[in-house]
Parts: sequence; C-alpha cells; structure tokens
Amino acid sequence: MTDRRRLRLGAVLVGTGGPGSHGAWKDPEIPGDASVDVRWYVEQARAAERARFDHVFIVDSQFITPDSPPHYLNRLEPLTLLSALAVATERIGLIGTLSTSYDEPFSVARRFASLDLISGGRAGWNVVTSGDEGTAGLFGRDQHLDYGQRYGRALEHVRLVQRLWDSYEDDAFPRDRERGVFLDPTRLHAVDHVGEHFRVHGPLNIQRSPQGQPVIFQAGDSDQGRDLGGAIGEGIFTHQGSIEAGRAFRDDLRARAVAHGRDPETVLVVPGISVVVGDTDEDARAIEAEIGRQDADFDRSLAQLGRPFGWYDFSQHDLDAPFPELGPLGDRSFKTNADAIKRLAREQGLTLRQVVETISAPKRSPFVGSAETVARIFTEWLDGGAVDGFNIHIRTPSQFARFADEVVPILQETGVFRREYEATTLRGNLGLPIPENRHAVARRAALAA
Amino acid sequence: MTDRRRLRLGAVLVGTGGPGSHGAWKDPEIPGDASVDVRWYVEQARAAERARFDHVFIVDSQFITPDSPPHYLNRLEPLTLLSALAVATERIGLIGTLSTSYDEPFSVARRFASLDLISGGRAGWNVVTSGDEGTAGLFGRDQHLDYGQRYGRALEHVRLVQRLWDSYEDDAFPRDRERGVFLDPTRLHAVDHVGEHFRVHGPLNIQRSPQGQPVIFQAGDSDQGRDLGGAIGEGIFTHQGSIEAGRAFRDDLRARAVAHGRDPETVLVVPGISVVVGDTDEDARAIEAEIGRQDADFDRSLAQLGRPFGWYDFSQHDLDAPFPELGPLGDRSFKTNADAIKRLAREQGLTLRQVVETISAPKRSPFVGSAETVARIFTEWLDGGAVDGFNIHIRTPSQFARFADEVVPILQETGVFRREYEATTLRGNLGLPIPENRHAVARRAALAA
Ligand SMILES: Cc1cc2nc3c(=O)[nH]c(=O)nc-3n(C[C@H](O)[C@H](O)[C@H](O)COP(=O)(O)O)c2cc1C
Ligand SMILES: Cc1cc2nc3c(=O)[nH]c(=O)nc-3n(C[C@H](O)[C@H](O)[C@H](O)COP(=O)(O)O)c2cc1C
Repeated sequence: MTDRRRLRLGAVLVGTGGPGSHGAWKDPEIPGDASVDVRWYVEQARAAERARFDHVFIVDSQFITPDSPPHYLNRLEPLTLLSALAVATERIGLIGTLSTSYDEPFSVARRFASLDLISGGRAGWNVVTSGDEGTAGLFGRDQHLDYGQRYGRALEHVRLVQRLWDSYEDDAFPRDRERGVFLDPTRLHAVDHVGEHFRVHGPLNIQRSPQGQPVIFQAGDSDQGRDLGGAIGEGIFTHQGSIEAGRAFRDDLRARAVAHGRDPETVLVVPGISVVVGDTDEDARAIEAEIGRQDADFDRSLAQLGRPFGWYDFSQHDLDAPFPELGPLGDRSFKTNADAIKRLAREQGLTLRQVVETISAPKRSPFVGSAETVARIFTEWLDGGAVDGFNIHIRTPSQFARFADEVVPILQETGVFRREYEATTLRGNLGLPIPENRHAVARRAALAA
Repeated sequence: MTDRRRLRLGAVLVGTGGPGSHGAWKDPEIPGDASVDVRWYVEQARAAERARFDHVFIVDSQFITPDSPPHYLNRLEPLTLLSALAVATERIGLIGTLSTSYDEPFSVARRFASLDLISGGRAGWNVVTSGDEGTAGLFGRDQHLDYGQRYGRALEHVRLVQRLWDSYEDDAFPRDRERGVFLDPTRLHAVDHVGEHFRVHGPLNIQRSPQGQPVIFQAGDSDQGRDLGGAIGEGIFTHQGSIEAGRAFRDDLRARAVAHGRDPETVLVVPGISVVVGDTDEDARAIEAEIGRQDADFDRSLAQLGRPFGWYDFSQHDLDAPFPELGPLGDRSFKTNADAIKRLAREQGLTLRQVVETISAPKRSPFVGSAETVARIFTEWLDGGAVDGFNIHIRTPSQFARFADEVVPILQETGVFRREYEATTLRGNLGLPIPENRHAVARRAALAA
C-alpha cells in the first residue's frame, strides 16, 4: 500500500431491498424471505469479507404500514443480526443502526459493547434519530420529537453512551489468582449524569473491547444532522449525487468537526451508493434499466411518497391537479427529504402525478459501468476529495461477485484499496484511532500536574 | 421413549459463576474472562447440545457495585450472546433473561422475535422484574418500582409482547412473484393498546417463527411472582431445596395456572440446581466441599449480604451484635429473599456474623453423588411430582462432561430423558403447544358463527 489516500468500502445489506425497492424480492437471485434469513446475511457478509471490505452496514426502521417496501415490512433487528454475523465472520466490521430517540443509553451502550467483545473489536453504531413519526406510537409517546429535540437528545445520548463505555479502564481486571484479586475497584467509574434529556447513575457492567469503543457512524443530512456528525461522527453515512456535491458535503463536515475541536482525519465521509458492473458501460446501463423496471410500480410509489410526510395519504388527491399544499407536514419526520419534494413541486410547477413520476423514475447512479469505469469513477471521487469511501448497495449476489472479482482487483492494483486486512479491529482497518479511556487520561494528567 | 413423564434439562451458563460464587474464576478450568468470551459460551452450549439438553439458560442483571461477584461485574448482554450461540448450534433452545421493568415491550418483542427467526424457532424469554433497586438509576428513574407495580407492569408487558408477536398471521406473506403480491395486508394487525403501564400503537415489523412465539419462562418466587407465573409462565425458574418443597411449589403453580384458565400441563416447573458427579457419593461430596472452600470469603459474603436490601452496607455494624433492625429495607428489592434473612435472624436470634456464616456456609445440594445417585434423585423428584425438569448449573467443563457421559445415559436407559431431539424447535422439544395466531383464531370463530 502506497501512502496515497485509501478507499474504505462497506456493504449495505438489505435483504429484499432498500427504501424505494418494491421489486427486488421478485429477482430470482433474491429469496423472498432474505430479510429474515440469517443464512442469506451470512453469505453476503462472507462475500464482502473475502473482498476485504471494511464493514457490513445494517440500516433500520421500526414503524411500518401495509405500504412499506418488502424489506421494511419484515426484517431482523440489527444487533441480534450482527451478533450472529460476528461468529460467522472473522475480520469484517459490523455496523448497526439504533435510534437515540427510542432506545435508552444504558441499553444501547451495553448491547454495542457486547457485540464489540463478541466480534473481537469490530462493532460500529450508526446513530439515527428515526424519521418516521409513527415510531412514537410504538413506544407510548404522544408525538415524535421535533428536529431540535431529536438532535439535542442524540448528542447527549451518544456522549453518555461513550462515557458508559469507559466505565472500566483497560487494566480494571487483574484476575490475579495468587492474590485473589479479580477487580481493581479504583479502575471502575460510575457515570453520574443529570442532563436535559437523560439521567444515568451507575457504571456499565462490561469491559472495553480491543478497539476501546465501537466506531460511531451518523446518518442525517439536515443542518442539525450535519452538526451532530461534526460533533461525534467518525463515519458519516449520507447520499450524494455528484462529485461536486460530495466535495462540498465533505468539506462542510470536516469544517464542522474542526469547529468541535476534532481532527478532520477522524471523520470519514462514506456515502451510500448503488453500483452496477457490466461487460461494457452500455451493458451496465442496461442492467440498471432492468432493475428500474423491476422496481417500477406507480401505486406503490404514490403510497411511498407519503412517508417523508408521516405516511400522508396522497391517494385522496387528484393526480393531475397541482401538487397539494402541505403546510408544515413532514417537519417532524424526514424534513430534509420532505422539503426537497415540496421545493421540487413548487419550483417546477408539477402535478402530483409528475412528482410521483420524477421521484420514482429509474435512478441513474454515477457508479454504473464496466469494471474499469467503476474503478475509475471511485478513484476520481476519492482523489477529488468528495469521499473517504463508499457504503455500497449491490442488488444481487452475482452483481456483488462481479464487483469483488473485477472492480476490487483494479482498486488494489492502483493502491487505492487494501489487499489484506491491516488489523483485527474495525478501527484498525478504517484507520481510526483507539480512544484512550478518559479516566486513565485524567489520572495521568493529574499525576503530571 | 415410553409415555412415562419426561425430564426437561437446561444448562445455566454463568461464565465465572453465579450469585454467591466469588471463587469460580480461580478454578484452572475456568478462564478468568469466561463471562465475556463468546467462545467459552459456544463450547458450553455445544456440549449441552451433544447431551441433548432442551436449552441453555442465560440469567442477567444490570446494576453492579465493586462488591458484585465476578460474573456480575463483567458479562455479555443475554440477547446479543444468544444470537451468537444461535448460529453456532443447531437444536438446543436459547433462553435469555430480560426485565419488564426497564425494557420497552416493542423492543423486547422485536429482539426475541429476531432471535427466534435466527435460531429457527429456538428462543425463550425468562421474564424478570429486576431485584436490584439501583437499576432505577441506570434508566433515569427516581426509584425502583414496588412489588405491586413491578408485577402489574410485568403482566401487562408480557401480554403486550405476545400480541405484538401475533402482528402477522402465518400466511401474511404470499410472496407471489407471478401476481406481484408480497404481503397480504388483511393478515397484518396493528396492536392498539392503552393500558395502565403501557401504550402501543402499531404492528411489530417481523413475522412469526416456526414455533409461533418464543417460550415464556418466569422467575420470581413471591406470591405476586407465582401469580405471574400462573398467568403467563410456560416454564418456571425457581429454587427449591427439597422434594416436598418442590411438590408444594409445583402444585401451587399448577393450581394458579388452572385458576387463570390454563392447562396445567403447559406450565413446566424447572428449578435451578447445582450438580456434582463423583466416582462415589463420598467423592462427590468432597468435590462439593472443595467448591465451597473456593468460594469462601467472609468479607465478600458480608458485602453480598447487602444485595437483597438494596446493597445495604452491613460493614458499618458490629459483627457480634444482634443482626440489625432493618425496617422496610429490601421491600422494593429482593423482598422474598430479604424477608427470609430477617426471619432467620429473628427466629434463631443470630448475630450479624452468624447470619453471614449461615448464608455463606457451603451449600449441600441434594444433587451430589455418583452418577447412579444423581440419576436416581432426579427420577425421584420427577416421579414425585416435584419438577418437570431441572436448570442445571455445573461448575466446570469436566464436571459437565461427567454429567453428560455418566448421568445422561442412565436417564436415557430408564426412558426418563430423550436420546434424540424430537423437534427442531424449543416448543417441540419441551412438549409445549404452538400458540395459534389469535387473529386467525378470531377469524375462524367469526366465520363459524
Ligand atoms: C444516508 C442516510 C441513511 C439513514 N439511515 C437511517 C436508518 O437506517 N434508520 C433510520 O431510522 N433513519 C435513518 N436515517 C434518517 C435520519 O436518522 C433522520 O432521522 C432523517 O434523515 C431526518 O433527518 P435529516 O433531515 O437530518 O436527514 C438516514 C438518513 C440518511 C441521510
Ligand atoms: C430462580 C430465580 C431466578 C432469577 N433470575 C433473575 C435474573 O436472572 N435476573 C433478574 O433480574 N432477576 C432474577 N430473578 C429475580 C426476580 O425477577 C425478582 O425480581 C426477584 O426475585 C424478586 O422477586 P420475588 O420476591 O418474586 O422473587 C430471579 C428469581 C428467581 C426466584
């Protein structure tokens, strides 16, 4: 490996497909119950590990309606799934999504610490605040939190989880059989926190892993979301459509990290992308078009359009009248997304039907082409400062195999991607530092003073 | 297998030891980090599976102090652990402890349903209410709930989880590629619950497993605890010291189940016990005595005595003065246990030192002896109507091997225990019925009317 910038690669595993994917389950390569079949996930994770990917990535949601896409309707819970993958793999990182809006800091800290030990230091947490307003009802809340509250809560939550992860210093357990000393109690530190959103008194009942703490990813594109990423994100999951937009986003995130007193090299921007590899660029575009046809479904797209607006029912409106006036609808939900749709309709003066057609038009991903083309574009984005890596969504196992067998070798040849894992931990492979235990740091500082 | 009553066997896996065990970690057979080493658990679970045990059983707690026993200080979270065991085993049941006092019904339902699918229908939930008052502080609560609230909440919680598990009927997913039908929306049922302790609106986003729903175990011996067991327990985890006490307990539990309108055959009483196998009865007693010496530690026992009283600090009292007056201390904590200690001290007029010595005196388990003796006593308890099986805690792997190689064959020979698994699910092996989806039942009833 030269000292040129290094690409990080993650595989987003989504069973029967992602948010807009109504048709993936019909593909003969994808079992209809892929999203609840652990063997399916084990196979995909092992394929990604053979290709030396940094990590697999499990996205999540909890609230569903009958109109939710197949993968959403019926899926495995991320941490339970990742723990199973931990013992079926050896080196690949395991990143799972949990929401700071509906999970308790103590439980989140404990479950990720457990995964981190089970996997030998390969765990990562994708921090989200939950977009679906309906999630509130699943947890006995009257209303979903607004953006300010959600992101304020998220920041306090993550910092609290990180403090809980430092409950034990690395030398807390002498386990000295001769002297009969299992624990050194001076190395156990109870958290004593009273904040705006949480109170926690007591220590976490689990030690640190070989990577010190799980890696923090963050997903949320609004101004508040980016600021959270700048404050605590070590990996940023985002969507960016062009190299220019990517560079602007990455510059922004790095600047926010610096403003929070952090080294920008410890914030990796890793957008989620779709990749299609063909024999030629035309062949790849034809495969992409076929995927578009598989997913096309006007009625389902109309229903799905309601999601960023709290699953608003658009079918009550005339399809050929101007896109309806929605007022503050969506402000508590996926606001960034909802605002973009409102703006699109207003600026271009679209009807409801035209909005559905625009939103659900087959995507043209920038990462579609022959192996050479895909490798070249990856490298351009990396060298252009638009990304530190990609979270790749690949539709089928045969497509993944093409990426692994054809694109990865080119990236290795040019020194952009690893040939062998550098480390046994996710931090080690991503090139992120191991956070030293804060109490050890404080004691050393006190001794020096 | 004859039609004589069948013994169920579970293995309680506790890494470096159970509640009173200060010394297990010093045993050369037990790694000092056993409680956080997934490979250790995988080995124990596979050994239990080779012996055709019904299940492994993971107990749990969250609140610790520096005086907590080794296994408590530093352990893996039960569901994360069991999910890893699910892919490392094939037939054995996987029962984990989660508290109804601090976990949300939706999260509990989702995590167990996920484990149930990952394991192909082998999951069980041990329902507890958490004894340690300090747990409240970990979750931002001012005070631990009192018994009435805890058990009222537990009953509502479990019933709600079971309703969430029925969100999808078994035929909810036609996944018909020809007709393009993934979901049959008439087979998806949102929960709409407003109760005393919980509100939940919405369906669970995961299908039922081959066993319909995870098996419900329950642990809690007070009057309220038994009533909960009678209402919802399919397996009862308890401690019983004699065949007479066991029979009285089992009769009581079965009567309570009948009072709740249930078939008593669907409530299995499975006490937790310690087993030691020796060449002869004397040899076994000598091994037990050696274990007692390993665990003996007056100061730690004094500290540990405080646990049922909310980790009350007894070291502030004169050891040779009468056991202190404690008033209502312990009423919100492990009350059954705390009351028993108060009664013991009062009735026998003991000093604090004598109470510690009595409580921490090496236990004499009834299940200690040669393989023939242990097999005979097991059979006596079963035939005597005191138990439906045992949750066995065995100190070391070599002791477990003796149980598997010497005791199990005798139990198989006499037809008391299986030679091969009867089923692929935990319910199938325990002989418990698969609960039919309530919405399917209701529709059939409506059609018949
Ligand atoms: C790339 C990306 C991935 C996301 N993945 C998830 C997810 O898996 N689960 C989830 O609940 N929310 C997810 N979110 C949603 C965010 O957590 C957030 O609630 C939502 O996007 C609205 O916030 P925003 O306007 O800041 O983006 C994701 C957001 C982005 C941008
Ligand atoms: C055999 C047995 C095992 C138990 N195991 C656990 C456990 O693993 N975790 C836990 O928090 N509580 C456990 N409990 C505690 C109960 O959930 C309950 O909170 C405590 O025993 C006080 O209730 P009780 O007086 O009804 O027994 C257990 C209780 C019994 C009797």
